[in-house]
Amino acid sequence: MNPSLAPVPLAKAYRLLNHGPTVLVSAAHAEQCSVMAAAWVMAVDFEPCKVAVVLDKQTWTRQLLEAEGSFVLNVPCAAQVDLVHTVGNTSGWKVDKFDAYGIETLEGTRICAPLIAGCVAWLECRVLPEARNQQRYDLFLGEVVAAQADTRVFRDGHWDFAGQDGLRTLHHVAGGHFLVIGDTVQGQMLPPQA
Amino acid sequence: MNPSLAPVPLAKAYRLLNHGPTVLVSAAHAEQCSVMAAAWVMAVDFEPCKVAVVLDKQTWTRQLLEAEGSFVLNVPCAAQVDLVHTVGNTSGWKVDKFDAYGIETLEGTRICAPLIAGCVAWLECRVLPEARNQQRYDLFLGEVVAAQADTRVFRDGHWDFAGQDGLRTLHHVAGGHFLVIGDTVQGQMLPPQA
Repeated sequence: MNPSLAPVPLAKAYRLLNHGPTVLVSAAHAEQCSVMAAAWVMAVDFEPCKVAVVLDKQTWTRQLLEAEGSFVLNVPCAAQVDLVHTVGNTSGWKVDKFDAYGIETLEGTRICAPLIAGCVAWLECRVLPEARNQQRYDLFLGEVVAAQADTRVFRDGHWDFAGQDGLRTLHHVAGGHFLVIGDTVQGQMLPPQA
Repeated sequence: MNPSLAPVPLAKAYRLLNHGPTVLVSAAHAEQCSVMAAAWVMAVDFEPCKVAVVLDKQTWTRQLLEAEGSFVLNVPCAAQVDLVHTVGNTSGWKVDKFDAYGIETLEGTRICAPLIAGCVAWLECRVLPEARNQQRYDLFLGEVVAAQADTRVFRDGHWDFAGQDGLRTLHHVAGGHFLVIGDTVQGQMLPPQA
């Protein structure tokens, strides 16, 4: 159990995804579960917090997600880069990734899909069924029903990774080439020109 | 004119967004144009490259985008953080942001909306009309018809920001609090456990 894990108010759950991290999507149904990587994910609403994620038709995770009607978005960190690359390049049709790669899990609070241990945030979601989006664009919408984060890097509604390089979020480009998130900068309002 | 600007093959245009940067959305119609900030944006397909972006009903940029059926996703950089914060917190209904903040533009190659100068990538997009998504979720889908990037930081299909701190992409959390993107890490395949 991670002692630094804390609930995130649902009205601020969008902030866990707002900076565009690559996620691990986990789903479970009828005592089977799977996990995959997804870079095409974003928030779509504040409150209730909604999310969108693209899931290829060939993925086993999508089958479980559709059967159960729920899923978890896990936000992994730099220390997990090999795990993210590996579950993004193996198929749950062929292998139980949890067994094969010794993936530890935590229980969710509202959704049966497992939370992936070692991540820095978790969003438990119910599918908002939109058949046309799912079939035509592989696009799934979900409502966030519970959210948690690691307080070492997410506190008071903001990320701060200073001194926690291993917990920085991962941002996939292509082919296992990731960027890790950097440090904070505060924008200031410009004065209008006369 | 930026001498380091180069076309990006459409099959690799998704990589300009894959790592989750906050963007500036520009649109133009009938000699009016506007620009806003959007963090809720992602790729949804490889080829043809498609994108999704959430645009609030109250925004002037959305009105122009809907009227013209096209838009540009501009990927801004750390040197522009105040500009991004400012256009994200002012309304095109009330002010011409280009005049008020001295925003310089470049001409697009396929779409009439202006490209914002000083950004590090640009995706010119045609709206894929999906009335239900637009009305119910403020969610717009687009097909990328042209893409360019700044070769100082995007070359051979990959981002590399080493030595270019001012050109690092911005990732908004909330309230003008941004994270800048960091450096590269390469994921490796884990061996399956016996």
